[in-house]
Amino acid sequence: MSHSDEYWMRLAMAAGHRARIWSAPNPAVGCVVVKDDRLLATGFTHPVGEPHAEVHAISQVADITDVAGATVYVTLEPCSHTGRTPPCVDALISAGIARVVIACEDPDPRVSGSGISRLTAAGIEVLRGVCEAEASHDLAGFFLRLRRGYGRVTVKMAMSADGRTAMASGESQWITGVEARADVQAWRASSDVILTGIGSVEADDCALTLRPCANRLDADDWERAMARPTPRAVVDTNARTKSTARVLHGDAQTTVFTAPGAALPLDVPKSVSQQVVATTDSGLDLQQLLMWLGEQGANEILVEAGATLVGSLEQAGLIDQWLIYVAPVMLGADARPAHRATFASLEQANRYSIISHDLIGDDVRITMRQKINA
Amino acid sequence: MSHSDEYWMRLAMAAGHRARIWSAPNPAVGCVVVKDDRLLATGFTHPVGEPHAEVHAISQVADITDVAGATVYVTLEPCSHTGRTPPCVDALISAGIARVVIACEDPDPRVSGSGISRLTAAGIEVLRGVCEAEASHDLAGFFLRLRRGYGRVTVKMAMSADGRTAMASGESQWITGVEARADVQAWRASSDVILTGIGSVEADDCALTLRPCANRLDADDWERAMARPTPRAVVDTNARTKSTARVLHGDAQTTVFTAPGAALPLDVPKSVSQQVVATTDSGLDLQQLLMWLGEQGANEILVEAGATLVGSLEQAGLIDQWLIYVAPVMLGADARPAHRATFASLEQANRYSIISHDLIGDDVRITMRQKINA
Repeated sequence: MSHSDEYWMRLAMAAGHRARIWSAPNPAVGCVVVKDDRLLATGFTHPVGEPHAEVHAISQVADITDVAGATVYVTLEPCSHTGRTPPCVDALISAGIARVVIACEDPDPRVSGSGISRLTAAGIEVLRGVCEAEASHDLAGFFLRLRRGYGRVTVKMAMSADGRTAMASGESQWITGVEARADVQAWRASSDVILTGIGSVEADDCALTLRPCANRLDADDWERAMARPTPRAVVDTNARTKSTARVLHGDAQTTVFTAPGAALPLDVPKSVSQQVVATTDSGLDLQQLLMWLGEQGANEILVEAGATLVGSLEQAGLIDQWLIYVAPVMLGADARPAHRATFASLEQANRYSIISHDLIGDDVRITMRQKINA
Repeated sequence: MSHSDEYWMRLAMAAGHRARIWSAPNPAVGCVVVKDDRLLATGFTHPVGEPHAEVHAISQVADITDVAGATVYVTLEPCSHTGRTPPCVDALISAGIARVVIACEDPDPRVSGSGISRLTAAGIEVLRGVCEAEASHDLAGFFLRLRRGYGRVTVKMAMSADGRTAMASGESQWITGVEARADVQAWRASSDVILTGIGSVEADDCALTLRPCANRLDADDWERAMARPTPRAVVDTNARTKSTARVLHGDAQTTVFTAPGAALPLDVPKSVSQQVVATTDSGLDLQQLLMWLGEQGANEILVEAGATLVGSLEQAGLIDQWLIYVAPVMLGADARPAHRATFASLEQANRYSIISHDLIGDDVRITMRQKINA
């Protein structure tokens, strides 16, 4: 009995997950090459200017004469235009691929549908829509950035079962367990920027870097993550960040967003850049800030911040996805709230959909996303 | 290939779940009779004075001549004393049962170990400890009541993902979905008393009864639940409950706990009784109140109350189990907190263990229990 198209597409999606560490601004696409119900090779998007998933997968086939007549499973429609690399459809055609199975069409106007039509014109059988919903969720950051100018905004939160992130005193080490904190490290590695607020910088002196221990990356992912550390960004209206702040140091670059006229200390490291953003009644214009991150190619924006910045994002309806670690402890009614947004009625509050719930060590991780965004 | 002892014990546990509706003060025990790897019958504890699980199961075997040489799986050690019914061990011996598999020993000092030794003395093979952890969790309310005088205290809470139970205005209909509310109905049916506070009575005029629609009981359980509606209890220090309050009406009995000297209205229904409890600095003595419920035979105490009563229970460390329905919505920092307990440091906060996490409709249900209590 041969495996289903869905089976192979799930392998392609798993390969795509490995691309998250370095693919931005390109989407984290995965691909497998299959012949006679046998896996010939796996591939995933490489950094800008290097092979896309399909080309990488074909290059991994041990005996290249096997490729003719094979089926390629790919999570996103192969590109048909010459960008920084030649079109993937040409590579598939010249390799003699017989069949291409695609999860999602590419919303990029330079590709949309034309990749598929060029494959069909070359006599290749094309099937689309296999595992489309799951693959769309994986690629949502890329899709959102193309559509609206900025990527997926995911807010990470570690809280008690009564929705508190710290005691009234500020004490918060540790609410969640070591496994949950290791899980966060993997999300950092697979995001394209980590955004925090000046409040967290001042209170916790957070570094927002990957820690060599207590992460759950394998050796290969760890090496790739270290080679391209996820950039950091600080929302700091009045440029209060001190030049000694840990978030400005280390291998990863840091952008500090400030209001016009605010100036960072002169002795910040060279890897730090200041970006001026317009202000609104409630602080920096967060949408403008996100658009700037979108222009830099960030598909996946991970927010690790305190109640003020998270509250502002929630108040503005800018949060696409929540990544909530719920610890089995009750911190009490005077402990710090998860965020500072307020709503006059239930109807005005933002509704989400549960995507997953998993036990991570002693805690439950709940992911939920905005109903309107993938 | 024959089924494992664990397989049959899980069937016995499932049968035990059906007993929850009416077994108190007896434990909700389940039993199956098996011969030649074939299920002969299922049984579970009946109301006080009626058959225990083992006797019920044996009575359900279609051809009574089959019973000789059969194996009985039972979640609790069979009783060896004459209470309101004859000892179950006698029934097992006289039926010619060859083997008895037991999940938990009975901590009741009138039984503990002696049920097993009488079976062994009669030449019956006994195996104990199969699925003990799971069965102990099922029977924890009974075990706790025997050990400390009152049953398991389970607090139900329907809250937002930021730990809020209502908007600042009090608006709370509906935070969780229809499936979660139906699930709560089943917990009401399988509890031995539903405890609330005067705040909830005044704010919501809650009835705390089973609703004929929107529950997930099957026809048989529904009929049994209707025949023996779960009693209600109100914590009402100053006897403010009005005689028209819905919680005082309907088929279920209601106990109103008050401070000494407080008097209920004269025109409350006959099914309502007042119970005077000593006071402490922070209101009624909740431990004394729970002990009284224990004396009435309540193994499972379900608390459906507001932030004040839940906070008092949490502050006193009296909550054994939480049943939390988390809705994927954020209600905001000025919305009402889950409870009013406060703690000076993380170390003082009560830690629990996650028991389960399940999607119930659009919401996630998390159960967690105190580490020290089963």
